[in-house]
Formats: sequence, structure tokens, C-alpha cells
Amino acid sequence: MSDLPPQTTPRAPDKETPRAPDTETPRALRTRIRAGAFTGNTSGYAPGHVQCNIVILPKAWAGDFLRFCQLNPKPCPLVASGEAGDPSLPTLGDIDIRSDVPSYRIFRDGELAEEVTDIRALWQDDLVTFALGCSFSFEEALMADGLEVRNIAEGVNVPMYRSNIACEPAGPFSGNMVVSMRPFLAADAIRAVQICTRFPSVHGAPVHLGDPALIGIEELGAPDYGDAVTVKQDELPVFWACGVTPQVALEQARPPLCITHSPGCMLVTDLPNSRLAIL
Amino acid sequence: MSDLPPQTTPRAPDKETPRAPDTETPRALRTRIRAGAFTGNTSGYAPGHVQCNIVILPKAWAGDFLRFCQLNPKPCPLVASGEAGDPSLPTLGDIDIRSDVPSYRIFRDGELAEEVTDIRALWQDDLVTFALGCSFSFEEALMADGLEVRNIAEGVNVPMYRSNIACEPAGPFSGNMVVSMRPFLAADAIRAVQICTRFPSVHGAPVHLGDPALIGIEELGAPDYGDAVTVKQDELPVFWACGVTPQVALEQARPPLCITHSPGCMLVTDLPNSRLAIL
Repeated sequence: MSDLPPQTTPRAPDKETPRAPDTETPRALRTRIRAGAFTGNTSGYAPGHVQCNIVILPKAWAGDFLRFCQLNPKPCPLVASGEAGDPSLPTLGDIDIRSDVPSYRIFRDGELAEEVTDIRALWQDDLVTFALGCSFSFEEALMADGLEVRNIAEGVNVPMYRSNIACEPAGPFSGNMVVSMRPFLAADAIRAVQICTRFPSVHGAPVHLGDPALIGIEELGAPDYGDAVTVKQDELPVFWACGVTPQVALEQARPPLCITHSPGCMLVTDLPNSRLAIL
Repeated sequence: MSDLPPQTTPRAPDKETPRAPDTETPRALRTRIRAGAFTGNTSGYAPGHVQCNIVILPKAWAGDFLRFCQLNPKPCPLVASGEAGDPSLPTLGDIDIRSDVPSYRIFRDGELAEEVTDIRALWQDDLVTFALGCSFSFEEALMADGLEVRNIAEGVNVPMYRSNIACEPAGPFSGNMVVSMRPFLAADAIRAVQICTRFPSVHGAPVHLGDPALIGIEELGAPDYGDAVTVKQDELPVFWACGVTPQVALEQARPPLCITHSPGCMLVTDLPNSRLAIL
């Protein structure tokens, strides 16, 4: 981290962010984040509002990345994008993308260089911001319908796996789809397909269910990202396209600079989840 | 059959009904049926139009049966019902239910008594007609989307099984759900859930997928009705609520008289399938 300007604020290690009341608005939460007073996982905060995966790239790389998103809408559902050099995302709220994400990851030539809580010192006139939908929105819709989301019930991160489902390549961006897994009884899996179909902007319907080997996953108990969860005897594993997919594509493309959110530390927007429902 | 009035026309055994051009309208097909010139399976005829399962009951039994349908909309999706004694179903076309079904089954005290092609001589002032949606409509929607429907590809009747899923009882009507099965790759099964969700009037989304034993089915190769179909190694069996369910409930309720269509010999209506789509 020593080769980065001192103005960036390194992320504090493992400090528990105090829980806000469920009534805290997205804007109030962003104010705390902007002040550096909240640097943790945003899961469960500002319920009912869209949270986003963030990818920031130099303009020279942004066109191909946008095309990669358009070709692969299930893992990379684009909710908003910014003008080059403009840190605002007006359709998502009063946002300054340089300070309003609790924690950022800085990748240089595809390698993780450091993790910081503010990128004002790194901002450049050619940086383009992409905000992609995230599974928090559909998990909320599943729970609102009475389904148990296992990773939430067990208080862990959702298990994620590198599948053998190839993404459509665009310029330097390519790679296989990363999928998240939530187990359900068959009837609940069918209901989950119906519910998530309404939300194409947050990964949409599952991409697979049943035998993990059919999409190249050898061991459910050994996820590539996140934590393993219990899969009961009568349950089917159900797999969704996952927002980690673009990070894998970015690692392979190796742009000179790329900034993302830290896993679980999302951009909290003013957009109600219901606004993403197509039906 | 000797105890029935001679005016009923017994169904001709195994005579192949000549294939109509795909352009034959539902009304033209019903004219042939009404004249006794078409007495066979209606699968594939008058494509694009709703075909219906038919149940005709004395008024004293009709109220409970209607409630059974309302409590069990997936196996018994009510598309239309008639007034007592009135053989017309005006919302479905210019229909005389006494002659417009290719073949009828007459049940007395829950037992199959005979199979006929006309019920004018049996008609009573207290008979109530129920028209229930049928899987032909959603099979057409699946194929229009590019999915292979295995029973159609193999030229056989869909396999059907008595499941252990209990229907909600209503008066004398009760029993377990009969389910039909079509195998699909997982991604196609997910697509089938999406497509069939749009058609609640023709059984809607599947009720189960994956392990047949979880709904009480021991052997996929030995269906209780219809024919077995190939299930390939990578495929999941997908199960839909089936229109044979009310026939099982009727056998258990044992009304003094009940008239249904013969399996596969449906009422062909003027209603376009698209009119049943909720989205």
C-alpha cells in the first residue's frame, strides 16, 4: 500500500460497524459512510432499497466492459453508469462514488493492491463508474415471500463457485460465470424462480438447479468464495449468476487500474427494490 | 352398455381420425365432431386455441365440486362453467356440450359405465358443465419457446402418476393430486417454470422437480396413466398438476352420474391460448 497517495484512507481491520435502526434511510446511511463512520458490510441495512456492485474503470476500458455487461446480463446486470470523470450517479440518489461506498478494492494490472474507504485521491478525469445489481434485492424478495435464505439464516456469506458456464467475451473481458447457491425444497425452488424472474436487474431467475457437477462444481462444501451452508437431504441446490463474475473477468483483462467495492460493502442507493420489478 | 338408452352413440373402436389441416378453425373442427365425423384425440388440432377437460355433474353435486376446484386451482383450473340444464358455454364459443366433445365417459356411482360420442339422450335439466384448462396449451407455449416436450417428440401420451400431495377436500371430493411429468435440462426446467407461470388457467407452474420419491412416486418408468418417456441422464423430471386429478376425486366421491371427456378427446374452444396468459 506504500506506493499509493497517503490521502486514501486504509480500511480499518475487522471493526464491527454498529447496527443502524431499520428506519435509517439510504441517504442517512450514506452520510455516515461518506464521513468514514461506517466501513463494513451493508447486508440488511436500509432494507427495501437497491444495493449495487461497483466497478470503476478508465474510459479506454469502459466501452468493452459495458459490452461485456450487455452480453452477460445475468451475472452483470447494469443498473446505472456514470459519465467519464463524473463521480455522481443521479438516477440512484445524491451519490459521490468517491466516498459513498464503505470499502473499496484497488486493482492494478488485475492484482488486488489495497483496500481503502475513500478514493478521492485516486479519482481521475477518465474514470467511468458502473453500478450493477446485487443479490441482496432478490434475497429480500424471497424472504418477504416466506422463504428461508440459508446464508442469512446461518449468518454467513452466500457460497459462491466458479462454474464452467462461459460468459460471452467482449474485447479483453471473458471468463466463466461465478454462481451463488441457495438450497430450497423443490416447491420453494419453483417459487424462487417465479419471484426472481420479476427482478432481471438483480441477476434474475436462477441459471441452474440440481446436480452441481453439470455446471462444473465438484464439491458444494468447498465454495470458491464465501462460506459453505447446510444443504438438507430433501433440498435442491439452486444457482444464480453472481456479481463476482465481473471481478473474475477484470482479473483476466488486467486493466492498469480498476476500483471495485469490497465484497459485501455495497453502494446503498435511494432506489426502492420494487422499482426493479418488471411485473 | 346395454342399460343405457339406445340414442347414445357408442364410440367407434380405434378408428384413426383423419388429420385436419392446421388451418382448420376450432368451429370447423367442432362441426365435424358434432356430426360424429371426428371421434379421436384432439392433440395438435386447432393449434393456438384452448382445449378443455370436461366434467358434467348433477346440480346437487356441482356446488361441492366447484369448491373443490377453487381450493385446488392447480390440478382443477376452472376456465368456464354452465348454468344447470344449459348445454351452452358462450364464453368459449358456439358450443353444445352434448355433442361437441369427440368422446365422453359415463360414470355411474363412480364406476366407468361406457364410452360414447354423444350425450344428447343422457342430458338432464339439472346437469352442470365444468370446463377445466388442459396441458395442451402450456405444451404449445413450451414448444413455441424452443423446448422439446418429450411425450410429443416420442409420439405418446404424457406419463401421469398418483402423487402423495393431498388435495384440499370439499364435501365428498378429496384425494391426492395426479401429476404429469416432462423431463428437461435444468436451465430449460427454469425456463418452463417461467413460461407456465404465465398460464395459471392451464395448471400453471410445476408443483415439483427432481427426486420423484419426495412426492411419493417410486418408479418413473411405470406411470399410473399414459406412457413412460425417456429421461436422459442430465435431465430433471419436472412435474405439473394434472387434469386427471378431478377424475380421481370423482371416483372417490361416487356421484350417481358423472360425464367427462375421454382422455385426450377434449373440448376444442374458440379461446386463443394467449387469452389465458396473465402477463
